[in-house]
Amino acid sequence: MSELAGTARIRVRYAETDQMGVVYHGNYFAWFEVGRVEWLRQLGWSYKALEEGGVSLPVIEAACQYRHPARYDDELEIRTTGRMASGVRVEFTYALVRLADGRELATARTMHVPVTRDGRPCRLPVALREMLA
Amino acid sequence: MSELAGTARIRVRYAETDQMGVVYHGNYFAWFEVGRVEWLRQLGWSYKALEEGGVSLPVIEAACQYRHPARYDDELEIRTTGRMASGVRVEFTYALVRLADGRELATARTMHVPVTRDGRPCRLPVALREMLA
Amino acid sequence: MSELAGTARIRVRYAETDQMGVVYHGNYFAWFEVGRVEWLRQLGWSYKALEEGGVSLPVIEAACQYRHPARYDDELEIRTTGRMASGVRVEFTYALVRLADGRELATARTMHVPVTRDGRPCRLPVALREMLA
Amino acid sequence: MSELAGTARIRVRYAETDQMGVVYHGNYFAWFEVGRVEWLRQLGWSYKALEEGGVSLPVIEAACQYRHPARYDDELEIRTTGRMASGVRVEFTYALVRLADGRELATARTMHVPVTRDGRPCRLPVALREMLA
Repeated sequence: MSELAGTARIRVRYAETDQMGVVYHGNYFAWFEVGRVEWLRQLGWSYKALEEGGVSLPVIEAACQYRHPARYDDELEIRTTGRMASGVRVEFTYALVRLADGRELATARTMHVPVTRDGRPCRLPVALREMLA
Repeated sequence: MSELAGTARIRVRYAETDQMGVVYHGNYFAWFEVGRVEWLRQLGWSYKALEEGGVSLPVIEAACQYRHPARYDDELEIRTTGRMASGVRVEFTYALVRLADGRELATARTMHVPVTRDGRPCRLPVALREMLA
Repeated sequence: MSELAGTARIRVRYAETDQMGVVYHGNYFAWFEVGRVEWLRQLGWSYKALEEGGVSLPVIEAACQYRHPARYDDELEIRTTGRMASGVRVEFTYALVRLADGRELATARTMHVPVTRDGRPCRLPVALREMLA
Repeated sequence: MSELAGTARIRVRYAETDQMGVVYHGNYFAWFEVGRVEWLRQLGWSYKALEEGGVSLPVIEAACQYRHPARYDDELEIRTTGRMASGVRVEFTYALVRLADGRELATARTMHVPVTRDGRPCRLPVALREMLA
């Protein structure tokens, strides 16, 4: 299967806004992280367990397009998909949707390379890799 | 003049690290913001004054490539350039360099559209626009 | 009624950890904010609506005791109570409990003074004040 | 010597503000961390080196009184003092002063217990302890 989708929901915190009265653009990336962790969980994987097993998934590229501002107290859905982008690179894409009006506020993409505890690139566990193949 | 460069320096805070032992990828965007604000200041502009005058510069796109991790207590230089990308869009590019070894840790890009207080796209002050032309 | 309790649940984000492998102490305050906002919501109040109506509740004092570290992916419950501490001051107290083992990780307290849009101290809406009296 | 003072300077980042138009209260704690790290550095100690040597200084209590709001682009001075509060506990106190008008915006206090890598309470290096005695 080449693509799998998952959803996660969050509510915008006051701490995430800035004085423009909207969410600070840098704070979206923590939401996308929530998106991919919940996506993994829905597939039966725990990112925490993966990391405790010695494999981390650091971000090597991140990009976001902000179409409409997210605002304080908004309820948002993060729709995440993941796939192997090459033998070792994993790509996640995200759509951020406001529940109240169904509007897509942002889309984003992150690229990751699995690494061992000492920072060397490695392979994901086979079962996870096959799921993303 | 089509491109102007500025530099800013920051030191990595403990608060900016995560349990991977490196800086959380989402935190780089606050540094790039420091970069463009100091770039503006070096050109004789205050982003604060611009905003008090009714013009904000929200981010509509952001992208970063992470080459080597920034670590706690690292002293970093943010090298920023800005230019008009169209009649209304302003683009900034950033290189993040560690002072201790001169290594380029990341490069990034943000795109902005000036807006009035009620969120409508507007033009930058002429003098600033001409400097970026 | 002199004291009312509410609960909210959050899951620790990777972004909230630091290189000590636990949650950065400063990040707890955003959780307590979630606690008091959900507490208000459970009483039928929206902090967002309150603020749109011209009354904000800035923090004038905050204190936290950290007993056991919160860790990545922990599911936490924030137990909040609020009361009028004087004619104008509102006090919230918080207990942060890990769901997996019921352990109380931290307790905290914040003091607030309602202010108008131009920053002047004011009174809370009567109905809310009476609920807290 | 029972008390030693150090100073550090920061400029408020846009990312640190919230939609109240001032700095989010939880963000002050990252500044106090900058204060104590620079205080250590001014005494000839590197917190980074301390931690690489196996001793961390987690926060077990934190408290802040917010007197006047810090605002975007403010230049602030953090005045830090540290002392042994008991055989193992280290206490830091902070005053946050705005350079433009000399106004004290906040005062704060954090309590720490040195721990080893596996989280057990330990003693600070003798030379550091004596300096704080």
